[in-house]
Amino acid sequence: MRIALDAMGSDDFPRPDVEGAVLAAREYGDAITLVGDEAQIAVELKKHDTGGLNLNIIHASQAVSMIDKPASVGKEKPDSSMTVGMNLVKNGEADAFVTAGNTGAALAIATLYTLKRIEGVKRPALSAIVPSIGKGVTLLDVGANADSKAEWLFQFAIMGRIFSQNALGIKNPRVGLLSNGEEEGKGNDLIREAGVLLKNANLNFIGNIEPKDLLKDQVDVVVADGFVGNIFIKSLESGTSMLTSLIRQELMFDIRSKLGALLSRPAFTRVRKQIDPFEIGGAPLLGVDGVVIIGHGRSNANAIKNAIRQARQAVSGNLIEAIRQNITQ
Amino acid sequence: MRIALDAMGSDDFPRPDVEGAVLAAREYGDAITLVGDEAQIAVELKKHDTGGLNLNIIHASQAVSMIDKPASVGKEKPDSSMTVGMNLVKNGEADAFVTAGNTGAALAIATLYTLKRIEGVKRPALSAIVPSIGKGVTLLDVGANADSKAEWLFQFAIMGRIFSQNALGIKNPRVGLLSNGEEEGKGNDLIREAGVLLKNANLNFIGNIEPKDLLKDQVDVVVADGFVGNIFIKSLESGTSMLTSLIRQELMFDIRSKLGALLSRPAFTRVRKQIDPFEIGGAPLLGVDGVVIIGHGRSNANAIKNAIRQARQAVSGNLIEAIRQNITQ
Repeated sequence: MRIALDAMGSDDFPRPDVEGAVLAAREYGDAITLVGDEAQIAVELKKHDTGGLNLNIIHASQAVSMIDKPASVGKEKPDSSMTVGMNLVKNGEADAFVTAGNTGAALAIATLYTLKRIEGVKRPALSAIVPSIGKGVTLLDVGANADSKAEWLFQFAIMGRIFSQNALGIKNPRVGLLSNGEEEGKGNDLIREAGVLLKNANLNFIGNIEPKDLLKDQVDVVVADGFVGNIFIKSLESGTSMLTSLIRQELMFDIRSKLGALLSRPAFTRVRKQIDPFEIGGAPLLGVDGVVIIGHGRSNANAIKNAIRQARQAVSGNLIEAIRQNITQ
Repeated sequence: MRIALDAMGSDDFPRPDVEGAVLAAREYGDAITLVGDEAQIAVELKKHDTGGLNLNIIHASQAVSMIDKPASVGKEKPDSSMTVGMNLVKNGEADAFVTAGNTGAALAIATLYTLKRIEGVKRPALSAIVPSIGKGVTLLDVGANADSKAEWLFQFAIMGRIFSQNALGIKNPRVGLLSNGEEEGKGNDLIREAGVLLKNANLNFIGNIEPKDLLKDQVDVVVADGFVGNIFIKSLESGTSMLTSLIRQELMFDIRSKLGALLSRPAFTRVRKQIDPFEIGGAPLLGVDGVVIIGHGRSNANAIKNAIRQARQAVSGNLIEAIRQNITQ
């Protein structure tokens, strides 16, 4: 398998990106093409033992930054590592593209400048794999389309289900609609309209799902409008991070608490590992004509490696062909 | 001050409701009217030392349950404790009504059958006081209106700001719009449109606020569409409760962790107290012509007492008159 990796993607590029590629090449044996500034990548590569690994560099003279505007960056930076990397996939020189860079830019460059949409797909969707009991929940859209139509949500369900099945290995994934109440008829107009479409399709649709049930292994794929999906993941993170800082603060309050904290440290490490988004790695951009996995900007080398693992699973599962065949039916 | 309390409101009614009334009457010296089944309330009251307290009962032959349909319960149960209690406020026999019952039913009974809207208010809004650093954030709407218009959001901002100022005592409250990004122009069509209205008003509008910043004492009043606001609070709860159960599980894993947990117990108790919604008590139904505070169904006596405290603060702050004067300007 040949994976193209954006070496200029993460906040600390190219260090974690290159190290992640080395780890992945070693663990999975894949051919990994590092896309970006050749000189910088070469310097990083020298820090690692790359003997016997299938790594190569393709130069790109530009890099997308977090402050580049998604709408215009594709035009303004035609030789960015994102554009070059995605074109490798488009031209059949790589099987998948992985980046920890600017999500909005990746969406725009994929949709408008390089891979384009799979025929029949109305709107591509950004997804997130939400850590939960079980194998993790595929949530989409988490930000590509802030004002969605019911038909788009219906397509998100189809694409999310295929990803869950073909890339995460979940048999007959359960599909739900993110809503403010589980009863049929709850939600806003969009959710009710999408609910009717989903109910009448052959999709293992379990109906509306509330935020509290999303993490309890009741559902595998959750569909939302991009605005609501984005608020959801950000609120979830917000809740856990508020609680984490309160706990940290109170455990430093007196000697007794400090001793308790010391003894509990391995337990907290186990907790952190279970909700660590970096263990998941990345999330697919679904609906574009090629496998694109987007990792978090703060990705470390392990996160990059795991994002590459996700890309290879998506390729092995024939994600794109499966979407192509199912989206028009 | 005269507070009418729904004695049939909480999940375990009338026990916590009556006990909460006793605690509040003792602490605040208010006259509290317990509305509901006279016999049941009398039995509960006998369990407490009520000497010198200003408590009385007004009988209501029906009670709203959690499964009653909000749209029809006002008509089907004309003598419910909610209807009777709100009518006490309407007729000037009480200054405020407090219930831990069915929120949707309270909204419908207040809006359609008893108090009705304050003149000029397009839609009443449910609010929540989100525990946060600082005095707590007033978030509205959290569920009354699943498909909102920009003009309604604008009014929610006005009403939320008055509540924050007059009932919570926050000087010149900062108002924000819940969005998926803080930059102007982020959000969906509704948020962008409401942003323009808010920017041009004299409201101490700070712009868009992301979930992560909502809890960091950057804002006092956050406005959202009822669907999004509801997803937000439920996601926040969902995140903290997932983390809590993971921590609990891992702290029981081995002897070392168990000992750590034992020593950390007071620290965890302090954390819990800071995020305990029952310390806040309840949240106002804003836009109806009378003070209505709605507590959580799982309210204990302390939560009921705190909801009564909120009601008296709203009455002292002339909440309703302030909304009446500001909403039409």
